[in-house]
Amino acid sequence: MKTARLLALSDGVFAIALTLLVLEVPIPKHSTRLASDLSHQWPFYAAYAVSFITIAIAWINHHALMSGVRRVDRSLIELNLALLFFVAAVPWPTGVLALYLRAGGQGAAASVTYGLVMTLLASCFTALWVRLARVEELSHPEMRHAIRKRLRRSVAGPLAYGTGTLISLASAPTAFVLYGLVPLFFAFSGRTPLWPPWNSRAVKTAGGLG
Amino acid sequence: MKTARLLALSDGVFAIALTLLVLEVPIPKHSTRLASDLSHQWPFYAAYAVSFITIAIAWINHHALMSGVRRVDRSLIELNLALLFFVAAVPWPTGVLALYLRAGGQGAAASVTYGLVMTLLASCFTALWVRLARVEELSHPEMRHAIRKRLRRSVAGPLAYGTGTLISLASAPTAFVLYGLVPLFFAFSGRTPLWPPWNSRAVKTAGGLG
Amino acid sequence: MKTARLLALSDGVFAIALTLLVLEVPIPKHSTRLASDLSHQWPFYAAYAVSFITIAIAWINHHALMSGVRRVDRSLIELNLALLFFVAAVPWPTGVLALYLRAGGQGAAASVTYGLVMTLLASCFTALWVRLARVEELSHPEMRHAIRKRLRRSVAGPLAYGTGTLISLASAPTAFVLYGLVPLFFAFSGRTPLWPPWNSRAVKTAGGLG
Amino acid sequence: MKTARLLALSDGVFAIALTLLVLEVPIPKHSTRLASDLSHQWPFYAAYAVSFITIAIAWINHHALMSGVRRVDRSLIELNLALLFFVAAVPWPTGVLALYLRAGGQGAAASVTYGLVMTLLASCFTALWVRLARVEELSHPEMRHAIRKRLRRSVAGPLAYGTGTLISLASAPTAFVLYGLVPLFFAFSGRTPLWPPWNSRAVKTAGGLG
Repeated sequence: MKTARLLALSDGVFAIALTLLVLEVPIPKHSTRLASDLSHQWPFYAAYAVSFITIAIAWINHHALMSGVRRVDRSLIELNLALLFFVAAVPWPTGVLALYLRAGGQGAAASVTYGLVMTLLASCFTALWVRLARVEELSHPEMRHAIRKRLRRSVAGPLAYGTGTLISLASAPTAFVLYGLVPLFFAFSGRTPLWPPWNSRAVKTAGGLG
Repeated sequence: MKTARLLALSDGVFAIALTLLVLEVPIPKHSTRLASDLSHQWPFYAAYAVSFITIAIAWINHHALMSGVRRVDRSLIELNLALLFFVAAVPWPTGVLALYLRAGGQGAAASVTYGLVMTLLASCFTALWVRLARVEELSHPEMRHAIRKRLRRSVAGPLAYGTGTLISLASAPTAFVLYGLVPLFFAFSGRTPLWPPWNSRAVKTAGGLG
Repeated sequence: MKTARLLALSDGVFAIALTLLVLEVPIPKHSTRLASDLSHQWPFYAAYAVSFITIAIAWINHHALMSGVRRVDRSLIELNLALLFFVAAVPWPTGVLALYLRAGGQGAAASVTYGLVMTLLASCFTALWVRLARVEELSHPEMRHAIRKRLRRSVAGPLAYGTGTLISLASAPTAFVLYGLVPLFFAFSGRTPLWPPWNSRAVKTAGGLG
Repeated sequence: MKTARLLALSDGVFAIALTLLVLEVPIPKHSTRLASDLSHQWPFYAAYAVSFITIAIAWINHHALMSGVRRVDRSLIELNLALLFFVAAVPWPTGVLALYLRAGGQGAAASVTYGLVMTLLASCFTALWVRLARVEELSHPEMRHAIRKRLRRSVAGPLAYGTGTLISLASAPTAFVLYGLVPLFFAFSGRTPLWPPWNSRAVKTAGGLG
């Protein structure tokens, strides 16, 4: 399979998941105190922001991963589709979490739901890095070291989301803060681009392709 | 028509259909037992998983089909649009099946609906392979043998979904299990990539296009 | 502006409009006679089919139009965005028409709504062909004759939809049949591809881009 | 990061936001006076038109911005994702504004909501131009002058939307008219394409990529 088409499908799913999130934000009907009603539904804005940033950072990491790939084999395609399975699912736990974040005992179930989906999403990333690290012919030789480094870092994803899932049982709002911090960790620890290795600050545009 | 634009539209429809599936998964309103309510709606998760995997495998097969195409004629474009017609429709029978899977007598009608849409979708694939096999100028000469092999295999699609549609009348859950197995058959029987023939394990990335 | 990016946005809007249509097809809630309820909502399947085929043929014609374009100027971009304005709107009149097609006097208003949106959509196509015919530097010299031919043919679009809008006042179902015939006229009268002129049956794939 | 993939994600989000707007336009249920009910919901058509034109012009400006970019650095990617954050959000304030535009006192809150989202969206554009103006290595040398000019012009965006947000408190319909004028200002003041500088009327198509 040509990488170009795998990236086209992936970019499509990332872009659509990012944009469908907004459908979860409710529009108050028959409101007679609209300003108050709009501000009262702040968990929906917070959940929109956290999920949007999470998918956006995941997309950046997906780019970093794919930029190191020289060949695509069937396992990589299947792991990539498993990742897209959970990326596409994100609007649903986002809506569940936003609706029940303040609802006492139900907040725990909502936050566990969000945490489980995110743990599985992050595990797909780790599985992709494991595959790249194991099968040497899939990546550029000069990338081997960077891939092992990324693989170690990627383990932080399932660990953090797993911890958040457990914390949900004690306090959904605390878990929600943790969910918001995970993508920031990946954004800031990943500021050094993976590829190309000779250029740590900027990457040339794709010329005539732009 | 340039293949590139046909693939752009196709990849778009596949990606959007994959991502719209999640809108069919309900978010319980005013729940006072959220954990129980969420687990009670398991048919929606199962239907999301089956339809996502089905569309994802269909997308992989669509790639295999298109990678063997040298020229695109009007018939191929029209058959491809017929295929997209049913791919885009998948979220609807998925929602119908998930809602009525456990609803006694109504499950049969829901499962027949799902089976009919999938039978038609699979028939479009077979029609595309027939067209490729018949009009030799559309494909690469060295692909002729592989195309005939794929055509024979593709007949399993309408046959299996047609059988599932009939089984629905007796038992919707049994038919649902069959619907879940069909994409796995195509995933595992199709592990040998169609193209390029000299490389059975991995395909080079598209270089500057990646 | 590079044509490539204009096509990327256009293909995106066409693909999403095609796929959002399915959200207008209702899933019966709490049905105790599902088979009967599903068959009773046939106007939704018919409207889904008509609108899908209309957008798909519009996309083919959009390709034919763009394949003759050598340069893109601001007017062409703006006319193209006006076209996308109505393409993106199609799911709404489709839902209105499907819901009221059988509703006696209300069917007329629904069918007028559908006809007006489609008349405007078809007028954008004619305006694009007029622009291409008038400003010679926008197209390939050897295309001039074909463009004038296409311009004349494109006038059938607003005329047919305008007629359908008027017929709606007398009979919504008759107008609906006409709406279904218009894309078929464009599909069959346009079987000779516009470009490249030396190849009337098939177009080479875009090689490494495929 | 390759510009091509950043543009693919951006074009995807723009296209999807454009197309999701239509989901905010309601379809009257059980109407017995459909023509009257459809015409009564004119604020939804007006809001659809204003938001569609706004996103479309934003997309044109996004192209102008990106056509001047030679390298993409992390800051540019993050500012671009912040822009997409607000582009993807547009359907929500559009629905809020359409629903409450005529609702007396609630119109103010709805129009402030719309104005705030648009002020932030326009500020992301200004921030992107500031970044391009400051870090010279990101753009083509011959673009420096045009970028400073565009940066000055882009400040009109947050200023106009900020003014509209304040006017909302006095009159929501007046603010709505202003919201409709802002994209027209950017459309007409930006008729001279930024790139390439040697061709002020038309840009060559991307040849084999088209």
